[in-house]
Amino acid sequence: MPYARISLLRGKSPAYLQALSNNLYGALVDTFEVPATDRFQIIHQLDPGELIFDRTYLGGPRSDDFVLIALTTGRPRATATKQAFYAALVERLAASPGIRPEDVMVVITTSAADEWSMSRGLTQLLEPPPGDGAHR
Amino acid sequence: MPYARISLLRGKSPAYLQALSNNLYGALVDTFEVPATDRFQIIHQLDPGELIFDRTYLGGPRSDDFVLIALTTGRPRATATKQAFYAALVERLAASPGIRPEDVMVVITTSAADEWSMSRGLTQLLEPPPGDGAHR
Amino acid sequence: MPYARISLLRGKSPAYLQALSNNLYGALVDTFEVPATDRFQIIHQLDPGELIFDRTYLGGPRSDDFVLIALTTGRPRATATKQAFYAALVERLAASPGIRPEDVMVVITTSAADEWSMSRGLTQLLEPPPGDGAHR
Repeated sequence: MPYARISLLRGKSPAYLQALSNNLYGALVDTFEVPATDRFQIIHQLDPGELIFDRTYLGGPRSDDFVLIALTTGRPRATATKQAFYAALVERLAASPGIRPEDVMVVITTSAADEWSMSRGLTQLLEPPPGDGAHR
Repeated sequence: MPYARISLLRGKSPAYLQALSNNLYGALVDTFEVPATDRFQIIHQLDPGELIFDRTYLGGPRSDDFVLIALTTGRPRATATKQAFYAALVERLAASPGIRPEDVMVVITTSAADEWSMSRGLTQLLEPPPGDGAHR
Repeated sequence: MPYARISLLRGKSPAYLQALSNNLYGALVDTFEVPATDRFQIIHQLDPGELIFDRTYLGGPRSDDFVLIALTTGRPRATATKQAFYAALVERLAASPGIRPEDVMVVITTSAADEWSMSRGLTQLLEPPPGDGAHR
């Protein structure tokens, strides 16, 4: 399972943040082999001067709607899986809450199954229950 | 040495946060091969809507006391070492500040010794002083 | 390309934070094989009790000016490259905004080229444009 740390400038409505959360999660379920109830996200709202980003480096042009999504996962995915996720994500976020694809940046960090304890001090990703075996 | 990024909902007392910090640190020293003065932690308090977590995925039931501890370390540990740490952590946090084991999630990310500069622009984990050689 | 998550105690001036950002970026460009417009940074200002650090572990003595810089990169660098970066960073920060080298800690996490989508749902680090091929 992954968890996401989402950084953006402060000032968006609760409904905007909720749509961002929902559609990130939807893209993960649709394309990134993430189970339907596996949602863990941190939204970090920043003041001007706290979020610094180049407007045109390898993409953009980026606006003040820029969002940096840092995803930490519990096992490797194929390159094609990652690419399908990036494509689905920007399509979903463009639809709702209306973030331009130019403004979406994603960074994935991969760790191992035994580096996760989901709850109760156990290593659920090492010995997942039936039906969750492939999902981390 | 590791550093920890601790995310939880805002509203806990300073004493609660201090006990959380102390017992995370104590569990690391007791079980994770961390030296006695090696404590680096960031506590990220979030507002409702900024911390999103599934209440029952692979554990729980999680409450509003949910805490996500992201640990970055400077060298690999054995699976058994990680498991001992998870178990010690939830036991300690249950005792003080009184966090239910169901509410504790941990994610470890492992980097290399030369990826740390503890101070002064040096790579202390590459050439540690006598007595600290095994601890990162 | 890397992005940086910079954690420090709240209370510094905007000019101080700007100088910190500029000189971190300058050190990356000068020593870490980072292109001239590749700047992505998050500054996380924390209240007392939210940033916990040992004053003397493997360095210091650390003061309330302590800054923890967590850098995530898109490809490995040589140890000598990392060491040149650490050295250049503390020299620059000492000059402006005047942070003592003892107060600077850096942790690097390395991910792969296909784990980055800089914009528009594409994997720019996999197929970089001419002239940016070596820079991630």
